[in-house]
Parts: sequence; structure tokens; C-alpha cells
Amino acid sequence: MVEEALVFWVGAAIFGFTSLMFAALEKRGHGGEMVFGSNIFVSFITTISYVVMALALGTTIAENGQPIYWTRWLFYIASCSILTLDIAFIARKPASKKVEVALFTGLTMFCGFLASIIVTADRWWFFALSTAAYFGVLYTLSKRLGDESVNVTSIMWFVMVTWSLFPVVWVLAPTGFGVLTTFVEAILYLALDLITKVAFGLYISARQDIGK
Amino acid sequence: MVEEALVFWVGAAIFGFTSLMFAALEKRGHGGEMVFGSNIFVSFITTISYVVMALALGTTIAENGQPIYWTRWLFYIASCSILTLDIAFIARKPASKKVEVALFTGLTMFCGFLASIIVTADRWWFFALSTAAYFGVLYTLSKRLGDESVNVTSIMWFVMVTWSLFPVVWVLAPTGFGVLTTFVEAILYLALDLITKVAFGLYISARQDIGK
Amino acid sequence: MVEEALVFWVGAAIFGFTSLMFAALEKRGHGGEMVFGSNIFVSFITTISYVVMALALGTTIAENGQPIYWTRWLFYIASCSILTLDIAFIARKPASKKVEVALFTGLTMFCGFLASIIVTADRWWFFALSTAAYFGVLYTLSKRLGDESVNVTSIMWFVMVTWSLFPVVWVLAPTGFGVLTTFVEAILYLALDLITKVAFGLYISARQDIGK
Repeated sequence: MVEEALVFWVGAAIFGFTSLMFAALEKRGHGGEMVFGSNIFVSFITTISYVVMALALGTTIAENGQPIYWTRWLFYIASCSILTLDIAFIARKPASKKVEVALFTGLTMFCGFLASIIVTADRWWFFALSTAAYFGVLYTLSKRLGDESVNVTSIMWFVMVTWSLFPVVWVLAPTGFGVLTTFVEAILYLALDLITKVAFGLYISARQDIGK
Repeated sequence: MVEEALVFWVGAAIFGFTSLMFAALEKRGHGGEMVFGSNIFVSFITTISYVVMALALGTTIAENGQPIYWTRWLFYIASCSILTLDIAFIARKPASKKVEVALFTGLTMFCGFLASIIVTADRWWFFALSTAAYFGVLYTLSKRLGDESVNVTSIMWFVMVTWSLFPVVWVLAPTGFGVLTTFVEAILYLALDLITKVAFGLYISARQDIGK
Repeated sequence: MVEEALVFWVGAAIFGFTSLMFAALEKRGHGGEMVFGSNIFVSFITTISYVVMALALGTTIAENGQPIYWTRWLFYIASCSILTLDIAFIARKPASKKVEVALFTGLTMFCGFLASIIVTADRWWFFALSTAAYFGVLYTLSKRLGDESVNVTSIMWFVMVTWSLFPVVWVLAPTGFGVLTTFVEAILYLALDLITKVAFGLYISARQDIGK
């Protein structure tokens, strides 16, 4: 077993647990959900993603010989779109902006998938397109359009800073310039997944002024 | 031509016919549809699925040498999500529960796809994840949250019993323990498809107390 | 570099530019959008599609030896469904018809994808299924159900005529009977993409009587 597989199994176990945890929180009415039990789905989709990576079901080899687990980005299309849709609900964006932010997120991750599965220099075209879509996410989230009665500025800053670390890891990992190994990359993504998906979900669930 | 191809062509012909039948029913205002002409789409997507299987466009070989038609599960992601969304409408679930039941269904079928395309023992991980998502479907459908003015208890029981036979076939077929041949499996799935998609759709269309 | 690659790069450049143009129009409140900034997404998804074709990331070889760029149809699933959803908004169709027209469009393009990636005679099954779904699009759009206070008859005729040229090109190109070369096919599709996606979007944005 390659060393990053351990990281992926740890990730699968944690997100399997948090899927159940968010289900229990929602059942007790502490879901704090906006439209639906989104935290459950974000955690559950991430669980599937980690099992797929742990079993190395879809990988390619970078120019520096390190493996690239490109399946991660396909699962992010679903999980991260649900997450930004939720964030748009928290920020009380109008319906059109909710759809836009989810679509921009899906396109960011889809181009990230293409940028990851392609190992030639062509991948930078899709990194550029992914970045363009990500600017769409940031612009739509940061624009002051929503109901300002709830103070969500700190949440928006938290989201925009932590999410922006994903492309930084991508550029440094074998997917980009290969400064980091796949093992270190796996640990960093797991940490970011825990911050943006679990810690964020718990914080939102705990805040009583947000939500329905 | 392998013997199961005949079953698939029969399925394609039946579902092609029922697509037109449900379109005619909807045109005459007997659609009984909740949000849209869902029965048409369920039948039409199933028609495409059966043609893909009849032409054997995507298959893998189980450990016992029998072919596995894994494409079926990709089409179920769309058709069955539409179907459970419809069922959630019939049960007058709140909007958040409608989204949840459709997402759980999609994840059940997606994990079923992974469990079917993988022929090693690893497939049981995805069978377990699919089962977990399916419990989400059953739990969301069975919870009494909706408007109780319409008696839908018998419908929910019918749905939960007949849908639960799909994983039973999966476990007995070459995808699972290989007790059944691919031919018998194809006949059983066709029977279940007819019960859960055509008979169910006709029954819902006929009941006047359900719907808009 | 094959000669059609130049056409695809030109397409990528134009749609990259129109993505920004529609974003600027929307920011200035001249979006004329129905639910969300759909023109931006239609152009942006088309940009990705053209870059994928320019890099020849997914092709198959037709029976006459010409390459088939089947990825185009996968991107049409998303871009054209958004577009017909928008058209259904313009025609003020009821919500159920909006969903139906988008689903029929997605199925038209999905079957078009299968018809394009398959090079044997089996592809005509999917051309037939795609045509059936396309009749669903035309029927749902042409049926007079919406609010007639806005005159959209000319728009509907424009849409139905220009969209119907896509299957004509498909039949004449290497995907069908191979009367046209892949190069000519690429130019014709680019022209149709510009008419149905850019010119149409600009016209809708300019008309003041349509929209919210």
C-alpha cells in the first residue's frame, strides 16, 4: 500500500463519521441548514471520494513520476457546489445569485478535474479556466446584494481565504510544479477538507442567528 | 447475440412504448404529475438504458466469467432520482425533503454503479455506501412530515418494498455472489423496472386524489 | 496541428470574449436574464468545450477515416439545457414546462453524444432517440401555454429553425453520412453556435419587453 492510501482511509473514516454526526444534528433540529441537510451530503460525497482515492481507482502519473488522484475533483463538483449554495443561502443572496455561485463552483471543479487528469502542459489551459470560474465564485459571494441584517462578513472572509488555499496546494503539488509530494498534498487537502467542510458545517450549525 | 440481449431489446421496446403512452396521458390531462411529466422522462431514460445494454456498449466481466452491464446504474441515477422526487411530491414532503430524497437516490445509484463496474472485493465498499444512501432514501420517505390529508401510506409501503428488491437481485447476481446468471438477473431487473416505473406510474396517474 | 484545430481555437477565443462581454452586460444591468446570468454560463461552457476540441482531448475515428470530436455533445448537455431553460422563461412557460424543456434538451444532447462516440451503424439508434427527445423540445416550446402578453412567436421560430440545423450538419458530417469533412463541419457548428448562443443572447439582452 502506498503511503498516501493511509491518509485517504483516515479521511474516509472521518467523513463517514461526520456524515452520521450531521445526520444526528439535523434530526435533533440543530442542523442550521438552509435548504436541506446539505452538511450530510457534503460529508457523504467526500466519504465516497476518499474511499475511491484509498482504493486508487482513478489515477494518472505526473511528469515527475508521482501519482495524481484526479477523481477528487469530480466529487468536488457535487460537494463544493452544495457547499457554496449553502453559503449563498447564509449570505441571503437572491435566487439568481445562488444558482450562479453553484454553477461557477461546479465549473471551477470541472476545469480542475481536466487540469488534473491531463499531465502535459495543456493542463494550464484548464487551470486558467478554473481560475476564471473561481473568480466568478468569489465575485458573486463578495458582492453586497443580500439582506445585511445578519452579519456574515466574517464567514465570507473565512470561506474566501480557506477555499483559495486549494489552488495553492494544486500549483505546488505534482498536479502543478511538483514541489510537494503526493503524500504531503494528500495531508494538506485533508486538512483543508476538514476546515472547509466539517469545521465550517459545525460553526454554521452552532450559530443561531443564521438559517431559516 | 447473447441471450440477455433479447431481454434488453424487449425492455427497450416496452419502455419506448410507455414513453409515448405517458406522453399521450399527460397531453390528455391524465398525467397526475406533480411537477412535470416525470413518467415520460423515467420511461424515456430507461429506454436509452435498455438500448445501451442491448448493444452491450459498456460491460465488464465478473469473477465467475459472467458479463456485468454496469451502465444500468448510471441511468438509474437520473431516472430513479426523478422517480423518488415524484414520490416525495405525492407524499407532500417539504421542499428540503424532496431535495434530500432525490440526492440520496442519486448517491445510492452512483455507488451502485461503482459497486457494479468494480469486479474485485473492493466493490463491497461501494455496496455498503450505496446501502447507507438507500437508508437515507427510506428514512426520508418514511418519516411522517408531510400533509396527512392524502392517504399515501400504502404507496410508500409499495415503493419501499419493491425498490428494496433491487439490491437483493444485485447481491444474488454476478455483481454480488453470482448465484443467478446474467440472463436471469436481466429478467428480474426488467420485471422490477416494469413494476416500479410503469405499473407505479399508471397507478399514480389513475388516482384522482393525488397531485396538483 | 490539424486544420480544424484553428477553427476550434478561434471558437475558444470568441466565446472567451463573449463570456466576459455577457458578464459586463449583466453587471451594467443589461443582462435581460430570466433567472440568472445564463448567457455568461452558456458562453463559458462553450469556451471550455472549444479548448477541449482544440487540444483534441477526446476524439474517435469515423468509418471514412475523419476524426469525430464527440466531446462537443457532452458540453451541449449543460450549455443547451441552460439555453432552452432561458427560452422557456422568455416564453413564460409554467414551471413544469421549464423543467421538461431543459430535460428534453439534455437528453437530446446526451443521445447525440452516444450517436457521435459510436462509429458503427448502432449510432443510428441514438440518433433516433436524440431526434425523439428533440421533438419533445420543439413540442414543449411550440405549445401555446404561456402568458401571451409578450410577443415571442418570432423568437420561438428563430430558435426552432436555427437549432434544427445542428442535426442537419450532424447527418452530413463524418458523424452521419460523411458528405462534409470534419473541417467544414467545425466551421458550420461554429457559425451555428455563434447564431444560437451569442447573437441570440445579445438580441434577448437588447429587447426591453422581455425578462423580469
